Amino acid sequence: MSNTKVLPLLEPDGESAAPCCPPLTERPLDAAEAETAARMFKALGDPVRLRLFSAVASHEGGEACVCDISDVGVSQPTVSHHLKKLKEAGLLTSERRGTWVYYRVEPTVLAAMGRLLVNASAAA
Amino acid sequence: MSNTKVLPLLEPDGESAAPCCPPLTERPLDAAEAETAARMFKALGDPVRLRLFSAVASHEGGEACVCDISDVGVSQPTVSHHLKKLKEAGLLTSERRGTWVYYRVEPTVLAAMGRLLVNASAAA
Repeated sequence: MSNTKVLPLLEPDGESAAPCCPPLTERPLDAAEAETAARMFKALGDPVRLRLFSAVASHEGGEACVCDISDVGVSQPTVSHHLKKLKEAGLLTSERRGTWVYYRVEPTVLAAMGRLLVNASAAA
Repeated sequence: MSNTKVLPLLEPDGESAAPCCPPLTERPLDAAEAETAARMFKALGDPVRLRLFSAVASHEGGEACVCDISDVGVSQPTVSHHLKKLKEAGLLTSERRGTWVYYRVEPTVLAAMGRLLVNASAAA
């Protein structure tokens, strides 16, 4: 918890994927919509990445630094790799404050993903 | 639409993944929960598979046969492969009726996936 190593996580922010796509029951997705939505689902399609994501999402205040979420049994470079993938998919944002980079879930993207599925299941 | 070839899709039903896991904001998922949930997300993490899935989910009556959903630009064996993956992940069920195998979305699993995300975003 008191590991003071600074991780090389300095990617620019603001590359989030925009929420996309109608509920899956409304009509077949077109190719572009499917590309966007599949990228987000794929980001959650790895067990370690999903555990890290839930660790950030469930952490106090909805944000966490790498120091808070490194107990999933993989090395810190692997943790950083997965967090970067989640950022690239638009599911997390990050901000450097002092020594650490803090990660937050991106609520609009997550809500859009959820609606894709919940509306789909309600209408099925 | 009147292709009468029968596809080799005769896997037994009932291998659905059980809905799993608390909302992602509640607590970090453990390894077993993450395995189950990641498998479902991964199944939707491919653009062609996601298009096929939305084609089934949005089809009249919430079900479709391969003859209804083959217009995503891939071969019928590829369509069958993707539908099989969706079944293995517990997202679709299938039933043979006459010449065709009909696919339905599995609403309980889908709703569980949606709640993972929607509750997560509401609490974030």
